[in-house]
Amino acid sequence: MEPLKFTVGIDIGGTNTKLGLVDSEGHLLRRVNFSTNPLLSFADYQILLTNALEEVTHDIPKEDLLGVGMGVPGANAKTGSIPEAANIPFLTEIPLQTVLVKLWNLPVFVAKDANAAALGEMLFGSAKGMDHFILLTLGTGLGSGVVINGKIVSGSNGLATEYGHSVLVKNGRSCNCGQRGCFETYVSATGLKRTAISLLANANQHSILRDLSPNQLDAQKIAEASENGDEIAKMAIKKTAQWLGLKMVDLVVLTDPEAIILAGGLSKIGDYFLQTVRESLDKKLLPMFKGKVKVVYSGLGSDDAAILGAASLIMNVKN
Amino acid sequence: MEPLKFTVGIDIGGTNTKLGLVDSEGHLLRRVNFSTNPLLSFADYQILLTNALEEVTHDIPKEDLLGVGMGVPGANAKTGSIPEAANIPFLTEIPLQTVLVKLWNLPVFVAKDANAAALGEMLFGSAKGMDHFILLTLGTGLGSGVVINGKIVSGSNGLATEYGHSVLVKNGRSCNCGQRGCFETYVSATGLKRTAISLLANANQHSILRDLSPNQLDAQKIAEASENGDEIAKMAIKKTAQWLGLKMVDLVVLTDPEAIILAGGLSKIGDYFLQTVRESLDKKLLPMFKGKVKVVYSGLGSDDAAILGAASLIMNVKN
Repeated sequence: MEPLKFTVGIDIGGTNTKLGLVDSEGHLLRRVNFSTNPLLSFADYQILLTNALEEVTHDIPKEDLLGVGMGVPGANAKTGSIPEAANIPFLTEIPLQTVLVKLWNLPVFVAKDANAAALGEMLFGSAKGMDHFILLTLGTGLGSGVVINGKIVSGSNGLATEYGHSVLVKNGRSCNCGQRGCFETYVSATGLKRTAISLLANANQHSILRDLSPNQLDAQKIAEASENGDEIAKMAIKKTAQWLGLKMVDLVVLTDPEAIILAGGLSKIGDYFLQTVRESLDKKLLPMFKGKVKVVYSGLGSDDAAILGAASLIMNVKN
Repeated sequence: MEPLKFTVGIDIGGTNTKLGLVDSEGHLLRRVNFSTNPLLSFADYQILLTNALEEVTHDIPKEDLLGVGMGVPGANAKTGSIPEAANIPFLTEIPLQTVLVKLWNLPVFVAKDANAAALGEMLFGSAKGMDHFILLTLGTGLGSGVVINGKIVSGSNGLATEYGHSVLVKNGRSCNCGQRGCFETYVSATGLKRTAISLLANANQHSILRDLSPNQLDAQKIAEASENGDEIAKMAIKKTAQWLGLKMVDLVVLTDPEAIILAGGLSKIGDYFLQTVRESLDKKLLPMFKGKVKVVYSGLGSDDAAILGAASLIMNVKN
């Protein structure tokens, strides 16, 4: 048996930066978190990141550390930089990979967070052994990673995949990207909340959600209300699942995947959500595809998935 | 310089079967056509096909013939068979590749016609040198081929790509596949005709199309009327182009292609169509993708494209 080697996975989000030490069998051995203050300068952030890296690797001999993989929203894996970091302004246009390779003298790979997560699913999660699958992360927004022939699809400019900005409703809800009707404005934790608010305006059933302000309302509270039989909450979840199923039709006929894996906060609403997604997909699918695609939840705990996924960027190269 | 080798490309359609002898530089040297009578038995069709193959290769030494590539609607490249040949009933469930390899004692590859055409574009047409592009063939239906990392995407079951059956309008027009609202019921030669008929019912402008029965109307007549300033014809073409542009948004954010190539009868309507497609795409695209994707017509004559594409199935393996 070969001696264990180690990688560090880093998940940079708008709220927190999470680092984890991962061994070559995919065990997450230890973790360090710090908050990502959006008002920082990159120079200051770089110091915090380096300190955290030292903390998580202090007892690992340099020759056993294979490198550092980083998942960052909006990252371009081809250039190793982040063209537009909407929620982490100090990263915008920073050539992150180049800077950190120089600073740390280690291999560093940077990728879109959802692409890193898809790689994590392939190595350690629900997509083990699959060559063709799609990961959708349903959180504040909707992230997406596509694997074809065993490889992440990163596209001709390194910009794939941004399926959250596919069109669900022409001239529909306003999106943070400046467009209207984007998929993620309907299918995400935020999308579910917007749908519930819209139903509170348009339907007239009694609902415990009527006691909450839009700022108090969130996906968790809607899920709880639904479990307690609240009609508006149930309708909001059902509509969200139906939209997701409908949009998955296009993914299936385009790429014929073995599975579509759902991750992120919204995927925790439970079996009713998943079942409605499946029904909605099957109902609209070209007959030859019916029953061929699995729809499953992520096999990785959501806290671990992002770190394991980021670490996979290095392992995918080294293994 | 190596001596020339040869392949045969066969394009099997519901109306005609076309064979061509192609040299290793992509020159189509000679051609044989015969009509595909849907009432034939496969045993009879096999004889016609073998005769045509002999006619097109009669003076080529066996050792210089690399093999036969076939593009067939609905073909599964993984199994070499056609699970459901809607317009060519005698091919349904025939293990075409296995049967013909045995009969001809030659390498035979079978693929979906649009996938073969995409390969042809990559080797000899508008996609030369591209690793990431999408081909859409706008004919009676809408065919699609996706190339990622220089390879045709055929999916986990060999069923990719059927983007003609993605959803454009929930509960929209009835499709031959049994579903409703499929992309190809709006964007194809047939889709354009349906849109014109719908406009003749809903709009009240004078139109020379009002003198034609639905069975007389076709994409060619609509294109001619539009060139002569017919308002209804122009609106029908504009709507079709806008729908196409809108649906291309999803393809771009999902796969970040270098180009989307349009082929088939509908792509011959001219520059107004192409320009409207581009505008509609750019208008709805996530800012980071704007201006990055080329939208171009096929670089191959449409008669040659299908044959060259089919021949490419062999060349792609041998080169």
